[in-house]
Amino acid sequence: MSQESTDRTEGDLRNTGMALKHDRTWDYEIERILQAVSERNASTVGLQFPEGLKRRGPRVADDLRAELPDGVRVLISGQPCYGACDLDTEMMRRTDVFVHFGHSPMKESEKIIYVPLFSNVEVTPIMEKSLAELKPPEEEPAVGLVTTAQHMNKFDEMRAWLEERGYEVHVRRGDERLTHEGQVLGCNYASADVDADQVLYVGGGKFHPLGLAMEHPDKTVIIADPVNNVVTIADTEQFMKQRYATVHKAMDAEEWGVIYCTKIGQGRWEIAEEIVENNDSAYLLTMDEVTPDRLTNFGLDAYVNTGCPRITTDDGPQFKQPMVTPQEYRIAIGEEPLEDLAFDTFHGTW
Amino acid sequence: MSQESTDRTEGDLRNTGMALKHDRTWDYEIERILQAVSERNASTVGLQFPEGLKRRGPRVADDLRAELPDGVRVLISGQPCYGACDLDTEMMRRTDVFVHFGHSPMKESEKIIYVPLFSNVEVTPIMEKSLAELKPPEEEPAVGLVTTAQHMNKFDEMRAWLEERGYEVHVRRGDERLTHEGQVLGCNYASADVDADQVLYVGGGKFHPLGLAMEHPDKTVIIADPVNNVVTIADTEQFMKQRYATVHKAMDAEEWGVIYCTKIGQGRWEIAEEIVENNDSAYLLTMDEVTPDRLTNFGLDAYVNTGCPRITTDDGPQFKQPMVTPQEYRIAIGEEPLEDLAFDTFHGTW
Repeated sequence: MSQESTDRTEGDLRNTGMALKHDRTWDYEIERILQAVSERNASTVGLQFPEGLKRRGPRVADDLRAELPDGVRVLISGQPCYGACDLDTEMMRRTDVFVHFGHSPMKESEKIIYVPLFSNVEVTPIMEKSLAELKPPEEEPAVGLVTTAQHMNKFDEMRAWLEERGYEVHVRRGDERLTHEGQVLGCNYASADVDADQVLYVGGGKFHPLGLAMEHPDKTVIIADPVNNVVTIADTEQFMKQRYATVHKAMDAEEWGVIYCTKIGQGRWEIAEEIVENNDSAYLLTMDEVTPDRLTNFGLDAYVNTGCPRITTDDGPQFKQPMVTPQEYRIAIGEEPLEDLAFDTFHGTW
Repeated sequence: MSQESTDRTEGDLRNTGMALKHDRTWDYEIERILQAVSERNASTVGLQFPEGLKRRGPRVADDLRAELPDGVRVLISGQPCYGACDLDTEMMRRTDVFVHFGHSPMKESEKIIYVPLFSNVEVTPIMEKSLAELKPPEEEPAVGLVTTAQHMNKFDEMRAWLEERGYEVHVRRGDERLTHEGQVLGCNYASADVDADQVLYVGGGKFHPLGLAMEHPDKTVIIADPVNNVVTIADTEQFMKQRYATVHKAMDAEEWGVIYCTKIGQGRWEIAEEIVENNDSAYLLTMDEVTPDRLTNFGLDAYVNTGCPRITTDDGPQFKQPMVTPQEYRIAIGEEPLEDLAFDTFHGTW
């Protein structure tokens, strides 16, 4: 790694996180799982992986089966999984030991073994490159620092690296939905509520920093992406245009579907209930996965999604009918002004 | 209806079931639901509709809300639903009264109110037309008679009509998975186990009669479809070719995913467990909906679906990897001869 990775161009994935993900040996904490099986005298072990790591499932099952007593069954969850908000509760009920891989705990529970899977990609080369976008410490010493669960193992290194270069690094743990200091989720950027006008996000993709920039429009969000080897500034303009267009379309809706998501960490019952309580043309729809087909079947004019905000904002354009966040709903029915439109974040656990 | 419907061609849906479905007033048994709410002092009512009737959901909710006490919440399930095997158990747990529309009970339970929704399409015009395909009673008096849940209200009329024309009508109730005499499901044709070489299927589509013909290859299955206004003979040749091709592809598989379906009426745990017990390269995957994306993520070579057989046989070609039934799996690994290949039927309830 080192200097080499900063010489590659965007899209060149040699030795980046994407390549490493497939080459590397992760620590699946097999010993911890085996110990739980033994302690609980378990006859079934359930494994749940996020989408990108599902193909590792059979190999982890192999490793476990080689050590497990005869007759202990290993089950792998085939349900989609996009976060610690998205535990396979059906599998949790059916198995004696339930292991959730790849996300940090949203809420600790004796029923669940969380196995974090940390990226082994180097972060300092891309941070070096990000200095071109950060204001220099002599001009603006304060910088917020955030990252995602998979790079959390390098967080102290990131902070030290910035401090060595003269920055005052502002970090905080967000709210109870977040496990670690400096951690952000796709739906929660409370850890960026720091006294700094510039925030450095170190992590893969634009999914998280775009939410971050939306949630903190007063701050400049610099994206140092060690996975795709690129530094950019989060730009919310296109995103905002898309939201305005969706809200405008939703303004014509006569009948509304109000989605209550049954995923364990994605339910906002009070918000969903309040909408149907006050609108006779709003219908409460319950589901786990929120997909275009599932909504279109109901033939309603527009939908409010009280579940995962990222489905609404990121997948929304794939839906045939406008789908809005709870606040966008209030804007669409005239209860709030359009200029107040903000990113929908999710707080609390379950 | 009457003669008019027999003059139309296939695909002409005027006044057929498809048109009627959208024009008609069904009996949603609102009174029975209201009574259950009152008796149980319920604060939540859950409604589940099959896919084709989901857009009626908001109207049924309107009718209920007009009569329900203030503060009673009506929830509509957004989960896909393809049969009484496919109850929204999450909704059942969350609601005080749970109503399942459009299917006959697979298993009675105090928790569930089943509301059958019967088609109002006339059946005798298409039966008249089916006489051209049935052997005449003087040549072959015995005829089996089967239909689906939605035409069950006309079953006595169908039987009487055939008897008036000199046929000996053979009917039976299938096994415990079936509520009514003469009823078939997409996965169960035990009601056609009758002493007759010709079986008349009265009902919409080719989905059911194709399964019926596969399950009873010794019988001629005449399809009298009052919904699409067409009479045909069930032809399993194309279907069988597709199954042979899939099994052949699966013969090359080194690693297998074994799907255990978590839908209440689609679980066959013993079958799934037996496969993984005896094959170290087979992995137990649990899920509710079985979709191409969910399987492809695991990167295995082939899949055995122990859940709904119709997903395997009817949707199978949409899957990127071969997906087979449990018996087809045994053929693919050499435990059974290819010529024994039979339709996968589903018995029992839960």
